[in-house]
Amino acid sequence: MSFSIDRRALLTSAATVAVLFGAALPASTQALAQADLLPSWNDVASKRAITGFVARVTRQGGPDFVPPAERIATFDNDGTLWVEHPMYVQLAFALDRVKALAPLHPEWKDAQPFKAVLAGDMKTLADSGEHGMAELVTATHAGMTTEEFGKIVSDWLATARDARFKRPYTELSYLPMIELLAYLRANGFKTFIVSGGGIEFMRPWTERVYGVPPEQVVGSSIKTRFQMRDGRPELFRLPELNFIDDKAGKPVGINEFIGRRPIAAFGNSDGDLEMLQWTTMSGGARLGLLVHHTDAEREYAYDRNTSFGRLDKALDMAATNHWVVVDMKNDWKRIFAFE
Amino acid sequence: MSFSIDRRALLTSAATVAVLFGAALPASTQALAQADLLPSWNDVASKRAITGFVARVTRQGGPDFVPPAERIATFDNDGTLWVEHPMYVQLAFALDRVKALAPLHPEWKDAQPFKAVLAGDMKTLADSGEHGMAELVTATHAGMTTEEFGKIVSDWLATARDARFKRPYTELSYLPMIELLAYLRANGFKTFIVSGGGIEFMRPWTERVYGVPPEQVVGSSIKTRFQMRDGRPELFRLPELNFIDDKAGKPVGINEFIGRRPIAAFGNSDGDLEMLQWTTMSGGARLGLLVHHTDAEREYAYDRNTSFGRLDKALDMAATNHWVVVDMKNDWKRIFAFE
Repeated sequence: MSFSIDRRALLTSAATVAVLFGAALPASTQALAQADLLPSWNDVASKRAITGFVARVTRQGGPDFVPPAERIATFDNDGTLWVEHPMYVQLAFALDRVKALAPLHPEWKDAQPFKAVLAGDMKTLADSGEHGMAELVTATHAGMTTEEFGKIVSDWLATARDARFKRPYTELSYLPMIELLAYLRANGFKTFIVSGGGIEFMRPWTERVYGVPPEQVVGSSIKTRFQMRDGRPELFRLPELNFIDDKAGKPVGINEFIGRRPIAAFGNSDGDLEMLQWTTMSGGARLGLLVHHTDAEREYAYDRNTSFGRLDKALDMAATNHWVVVDMKNDWKRIFAFE
Repeated sequence: MSFSIDRRALLTSAATVAVLFGAALPASTQALAQADLLPSWNDVASKRAITGFVARVTRQGGPDFVPPAERIATFDNDGTLWVEHPMYVQLAFALDRVKALAPLHPEWKDAQPFKAVLAGDMKTLADSGEHGMAELVTATHAGMTTEEFGKIVSDWLATARDARFKRPYTELSYLPMIELLAYLRANGFKTFIVSGGGIEFMRPWTERVYGVPPEQVVGSSIKTRFQMRDGRPELFRLPELNFIDDKAGKPVGINEFIGRRPIAAFGNSDGDLEMLQWTTMSGGARLGLLVHHTDAEREYAYDRNTSFGRLDKALDMAATNHWVVVDMKNDWKRIFAFE
C-alpha cells in the first residue's frame, strides 16, 4: 500500500466522523476534506462535473442536498473499474478452468465449445454464441459448493497473469476509478458494484481491490441449492441461470438488491445504458458517467466495434442526457497504479 | 421518540467511533458501552447467552474474535420482530387491498378466492391453498410500478389498525428485539432482515421501525420489468414469482444478497430452520436464537399448531444445536413499547 492509499483511508474516516458529528469538524479535518482526492484525474470537464455534483448533493441546506443514506452510487465493473480486453477476465478464467479440468473430461476433445477452447481456436469459440457460453459457464462455474467456487476464483487470481501487462488481473483496475470510489465514500456515499459479471466471481476480491464489501456487489448469478451433506450445511452451485444483471436487468437488480434508486451511476458500455437512465432520469441532481476507452497506448481504444464492452447507443445518447463522457487518454494522468 | 431510543442512537454512534479509532476510547464512552442496552430483557439464560456471545466475538485478541466486517446478523421478520397473529400483516394488507379494489373488479363477486375475502369467509380462503394465495398476491401486489407499490404500502400502514391492539402494525414490533438490533449494531454488527415476506412490502418502513435500511432487507419477490413510459424509466411489477425467501430459500437468499455467512441468526418458526443451520453449523462462535411465543396474555401463545409461524421441527432441534430459545412470557419484561 502506497502513501496515497493510506491518505485516502484516513480521509474516509475523517469524513465518517464528519457525518456523525455534523458541522463540528476541527479546522484540520476540513482542510483534509478539501484536499484533492482525485489526483490521477486531469483538471478537465469530467473531473469538474464529478466534484461539482458531489459539492451540490453534500451541501447541507442547499437545493440539491441529499441525505447520506440516499447517496447510492453504482459502478459497472468490466471496462469501468478494470480492463475488459482482449476479453472479459471472467472469460479468461473460464478458459483456464476448461484447460485445468480437461484431464477429467476426455470427452471435451471432441465436443464444442471445449474442443475450440483446448485448441485456442477463438474464432470457433465465438461462433458457438450464447449456447457455447452457457456450456462453458455450466462446466466451469457449477457443480461445486459456493465456498469451493470462491476458493477456485481466489486461487486463480493469485496466479493468473494478463498476457499483455504480465500482471495479476486485479492490478489492471483503473486508479482514477479507485480514487473516485474512495472520494464518493469520503463524501458519505455508499458504493455498489452492479455488473453483468458473476456475483460470486467478484465477491472474493472486490473489498480488497475496490473497498466494496461483498454485500454491496450485485451481479449475474446461477441458482444454488441448500443441502445437508455429512451433517453439514452447504450451498451447491447448479447448472441453471438465475439472473442476468445486464442492460435492462441492471435497474431490476439495483431495485432487488439495493432497494433504493442511485443518484450516481458509472459505466462504459451499452450494457450500462438502462442503469444510467434509471439513475439520472429521476429529478434532482444526478450524475451519469461513461468511461470511453480512447487510449490504445496505455490501455485499449474501442467503442462501437468490439465484442467486449460495445459502446454505441449510450454514446449517442450521452449529450442529450448530460452524461459525462470520460476520455481516458486525455482525462486520466495515470490509468494503472503500477505505471 | 422516547429517551431510551435517543440513548440507543447515541450509543450506536459511540460504538461507530470506537470501531474507527480502535481502543482510543475516552472513559466516558466505555462506560456508555457497558450500560445495559437490553433493558426489556429479564436477566435470564437467553439474555446471558446473547451478551456472552457478543462479548466473545468482540474481544480483540480473544480466541473467538470476529472482525466487524464479518459480524453479520440476520433476523426473520414475522413473529421474530413483529406480530404474525392472527395472520401475517402482509396477508391483512392483501385482504384490505382486495376490498379497496373490489369496485374496479365486479367479477370478483363470483370468483374465488376473492369472493371469500369479500365475504370475510376465512375458512374458504384458507381452503384455496397456495393457488388462492398466488391469486391474491397477483391481484394486489402486481400491475403497478415499484414506486406506486411503495406508496400503497406506506399509505396502508399509516391508517390500518390491528383488530386486537387497535394500533398501527408497526407499533406491534417487539421492543426487546428492537433493543437487540441496536445492541448488535452498537457492537459493530451489520443487521439484516431475512424474511419470507415480500421484500418491497418491508422496505418502506424497516429503517424507521428497526433501523435496518432497504439495502439490508432480504425477502420474497415477484419479477419486475424495466420500461420507458412517456420518456421516463420505470420498474413495473409483474404477476410472476421471482424468489421465495423461506425455509431452504433463506440460506440461498443470504448468499445471493449478502454474500457472507452470518455469525448470528434470529427466527421463530420452522421457516427459519435452514437459516439457523447455515449460520450456526460453521465453526467458531455462533449464535442461533428462536423466539418462542408463550405469552397468550400480552401477545399470543403458539408453536406446533398454527398456520402462521409454525414452530415444530426447529424447536425439537434447538437443544442439540445449542440454539437459544426465548420464552417470551418469562424472558421479556415488556413486549411492546406502548405497554
